[in-house]
Amino acid sequence: MMNRLKCILTYDGAGFEGYQIQKEKRTVQLEVQRALSRIHKGTEVKVSASGRTDAGVHAVGQVLHFDSLLDIPEAAWQKALNAHLPKDIWVKKVESVSGDFHARFDVVKKEYRYKVSLAKDFNVFDRDQVYHYPYPLDLEAVKEACGHFIGEHDFTSFCSAKTEVEDKVRIIYSLDVELKGEDLEFQIIGNGFLYNMVRIIVGTLLEIGQGKKLPRDIFSILEARDRGAAGRTAPAHGLYLWNVVYDDN
Amino acid sequence: MMNRLKCILTYDGAGFEGYQIQKEKRTVQLEVQRALSRIHKGTEVKVSASGRTDAGVHAVGQVLHFDSLLDIPEAAWQKALNAHLPKDIWVKKVESVSGDFHARFDVVKKEYRYKVSLAKDFNVFDRDQVYHYPYPLDLEAVKEACGHFIGEHDFTSFCSAKTEVEDKVRIIYSLDVELKGEDLEFQIIGNGFLYNMVRIIVGTLLEIGQGKKLPRDIFSILEARDRGAAGRTAPAHGLYLWNVVYDDN
Repeated sequence: MMNRLKCILTYDGAGFEGYQIQKEKRTVQLEVQRALSRIHKGTEVKVSASGRTDAGVHAVGQVLHFDSLLDIPEAAWQKALNAHLPKDIWVKKVESVSGDFHARFDVVKKEYRYKVSLAKDFNVFDRDQVYHYPYPLDLEAVKEACGHFIGEHDFTSFCSAKTEVEDKVRIIYSLDVELKGEDLEFQIIGNGFLYNMVRIIVGTLLEIGQGKKLPRDIFSILEARDRGAAGRTAPAHGLYLWNVVYDDN
Repeated sequence: MMNRLKCILTYDGAGFEGYQIQKEKRTVQLEVQRALSRIHKGTEVKVSASGRTDAGVHAVGQVLHFDSLLDIPEAAWQKALNAHLPKDIWVKKVESVSGDFHARFDVVKKEYRYKVSLAKDFNVFDRDQVYHYPYPLDLEAVKEACGHFIGEHDFTSFCSAKTEVEDKVRIIYSLDVELKGEDLEFQIIGNGFLYNMVRIIVGTLLEIGQGKKLPRDIFSILEARDRGAAGRTAPAHGLYLWNVVYDDN
């Protein structure tokens, strides 16, 4: 009997050309399908993820599903996958789900986080995991601006011009920023995100923190529906796909 | 006039075959001398460090010195070096010192730390910086055993058999272990350390934590003056050269 498995995984994006398979490139999907193929003695197994992540972007809770004829308990699936995966991918959980579960189409909410270090000194140990931004920052202005994103908006201004998606309306449920010592962390939850959307939001918020833009400028930037109105795209290596929520959670 | 510069640097050991120059290999010393050579328009500049670190071992406070005819302020030295060094080495400080300072011969104390994660889940983000040891551990036994290392001892049992040093007597001033959540950190300060000494001490302490040895066994292991009496060598990637102390500090 065919079983559908839901799989939660974490990966360090530094060594990957993103999630999705591309010819000749090292991607997360390639490594997962390679591990599954070994477990299935050479048979190809296709996986579907909640969405792509770009080169350098990390995941703490990426979700994917696949189908298998193998009858293996959930904990043994986790062990087998981790034994066959490289050390920069780790399967946190494998769950048996109903055959109509779909990792991409059933997403209800997604949470991303973005990590920034304001420390003067560069930290060699997290150089690929945190955006080093050693500049003074007006945290109150950033917090005020965060509030202006909440709700349903057309996010054309906060989306890479390269995108092909037509409907650019998304709902942001929460956008918070927390400063612990010199570490700044953005947390954003929404019903879906456009290409580069979190990185452009963070880039714009950092410009507001620098005083180059004002918190209230968010209103006119959203209104403009023009990528040129927003700030720069923050680099990929500070971004984490943190959690994907489905109806059953 | 020739100036002697003292330099404190941090590096992520994951990408290096250790500190010391070896033919055709990527080492920290090679990268530092390459950066200095560029700053000196091609002239070779030799550096002397407080000591070597092995492949995979990290540094938070490695110290080295070099001589230069260039007349550059300390902060500008730091900037120039960091501009020419790869991203896994970072110069924290450059100080002008007297011509008789020697980074190796003048060492008074050294501090090493060793990081262990007891978490069940593997963390992909610090896989090269923390030793993943997901086993139950008797912390009180480990703490008791730590105390038995304090003082002056012959550390032949805690030294790689490959070493060529004859005098194996060293003083340990302190050896502490701290548990924060599931992260265990050993801190050890001594007047000097033999080859693999910290890693063999930590490996032995972890075996005591597992109940495979008793805290009081440390006495007989020291007494034995035999590498075979101690526990296994803990892996390189949990170890950090944390701080080097000189008389003037």
